[in-house]
Amino acid sequence: MGEKAEQILLAHGSGGRLSHDLVGSSILKALPDPVLEKLTDSAELELDSRRIAFTTDSYTVRPLFFPGGDIGRLAVCGTVNDLAAMGAKPRFLSLALIIEEGLERAVLDRVVGSIAAAAREAGVRIVTGDTKVVEKGKGDGLFINTAGIGELGDGPGFSPERIAAGDKVLVNGTIGDHGAAVISERQALGIGGLASDCAPLWGLVKSVLDAGCKVKFMRDATRGGLATVLNEAAAGRSFGFTVSESAVPMREPVRAFCELLGFDPLYMANEGKMVLVAAPEDAERALAALRAHPLGRDAAVIGEAVPAPAGKVFLATAVRGRRILDMLVGDQFPRIC
Amino acid sequence: MGEKAEQILLAHGSGGRLSHDLVGSSILKALPDPVLEKLTDSAELELDSRRIAFTTDSYTVRPLFFPGGDIGRLAVCGTVNDLAAMGAKPRFLSLALIIEEGLERAVLDRVVGSIAAAAREAGVRIVTGDTKVVEKGKGDGLFINTAGIGELGDGPGFSPERIAAGDKVLVNGTIGDHGAAVISERQALGIGGLASDCAPLWGLVKSVLDAGCKVKFMRDATRGGLATVLNEAAAGRSFGFTVSESAVPMREPVRAFCELLGFDPLYMANEGKMVLVAAPEDAERALAALRAHPLGRDAAVIGEAVPAPAGKVFLATAVRGRRILDMLVGDQFPRIC
Repeated sequence: MGEKAEQILLAHGSGGRLSHDLVGSSILKALPDPVLEKLTDSAELELDSRRIAFTTDSYTVRPLFFPGGDIGRLAVCGTVNDLAAMGAKPRFLSLALIIEEGLERAVLDRVVGSIAAAAREAGVRIVTGDTKVVEKGKGDGLFINTAGIGELGDGPGFSPERIAAGDKVLVNGTIGDHGAAVISERQALGIGGLASDCAPLWGLVKSVLDAGCKVKFMRDATRGGLATVLNEAAAGRSFGFTVSESAVPMREPVRAFCELLGFDPLYMANEGKMVLVAAPEDAERALAALRAHPLGRDAAVIGEAVPAPAGKVFLATAVRGRRILDMLVGDQFPRIC
Repeated sequence: MGEKAEQILLAHGSGGRLSHDLVGSSILKALPDPVLEKLTDSAELELDSRRIAFTTDSYTVRPLFFPGGDIGRLAVCGTVNDLAAMGAKPRFLSLALIIEEGLERAVLDRVVGSIAAAAREAGVRIVTGDTKVVEKGKGDGLFINTAGIGELGDGPGFSPERIAAGDKVLVNGTIGDHGAAVISERQALGIGGLASDCAPLWGLVKSVLDAGCKVKFMRDATRGGLATVLNEAAAGRSFGFTVSESAVPMREPVRAFCELLGFDPLYMANEGKMVLVAAPEDAERALAALRAHPLGRDAAVIGEAVPAPAGKVFLATAVRGRRILDMLVGDQFPRIC
């Protein structure tokens, strides 16, 4: 019973010996950390600051593997980016797995390996975890939850309340890559050149802040995409946004994918894109700092905050038209992250 | 589309308007918190201590409701108790829901109400969250993950390394209640008198520590029960444990349930039971402190650490026999928490 089973069994989630074997041979082996290894009820940690950011996300992406990433890389990057968006230095992650009985052990090992690599890349430690197994047909291979703790500096924070008309909107690169890659892979569309942008963004954010740019607001543009981030920031406020369609960076395969299938790339999920808003006098310096970072080479100023119409987001299109970018009502696609 | 739907739709997890409606009308309404309400990527928090405990658990219990609790109460108490077991004062929880499409909105609201009540009872704040929806047949109604942050004091911590032969083992009350209640409800066995012991234990732990009892080790006896906690504590150490069967508190319906179905109550999950180990000179005071608390009325000294055989747990049975309480190999029952 102690051997490495080919498939995950219900008993691997029981808290008994098979659970210990799974944790020992798959999880701790890939994620060696002196705190995690203790397997105590909670991780005991020492922070450098009493001011923290705390976040959680569950990842249910399907398929588990896609060009540019997998559910493991996503589970690290997504949570790290939620911390980075607050200006918090990501320090510690929790890792909770809900495995469907019958998942191949090799699949789990590959995902855990990817988690380990992404955590190293992001400079975060995985210090506490949990594994549950549900019966076949009661899950979908693997769901992952990560919660994260980051340390906040002494700055004023990043909030849409700080945005004023005239402020510039920046993004660190091409949009829609993650959504297009996952959908294409899921539907086996065989469209070439698509790859998720999934990446941890704290290093990028830090380089902008270290350059002395007074960023007022940041948010990573995941589910719902760029349009949703701007809608949420503008909702109920005294300003709106205009976005210049031609200024929004987009890869050609993503543009072609969206045209072919009738998707709007402005609503497509990204997993390595931060939207930043800065005062006009800071925008150029922020742009330069973004472009100097490997994850910001295609950064651009894509729009600005405007006094009217307040609370709305408008797209200035290439043909000199203007259309509203409303909040997404239903679903563009489920299970994208 | 903005109306309160009867069932959860995939679009409720999309990050668009329906997601906002769900969060606003179900979650924030039940869980009003100034930090959670901001709906930022991460919660910004101020701690009283830089020394923290951090933990995560996913809850996949089936059925969602059972005598004495439900998945919501469990998701709060389980995580609070993992912090309490480290001697950490529970402060902040995250709440991540994975909902199966088609879940009745009323069921979700009832669970969220239960989360709110349990959080109040435990004195913790829910400050950050996430909601995902998966297709019908890809989940099982509702899975919940909570991660928790607690503040550690300056004491030496609670670790099995501190245990020495002669130390006493205590538990704060009857064992097996949670497991028996959930299994009975799931199988519709109709056995009366069973109810989960699901309760937040920080208040109880604090009263023991405030009484000046030098507790060496604590762990809440969830999956795998009392026997698993003691096996994990003894594994690879220079001591073992003996447990006196007749000293272990157990309700009569739980005893009858276990006899009827052939379960061993020492391996049954609890959700309101802390196992404590204290030096002999502290044990009586710890017992008195436990018994003075409403959640410790049935507390008892149930065994002790012994020099040999090291690493093992033995049960001294009523008929003066002795049997080994080994680590559970497979599954006693899945989906118990």
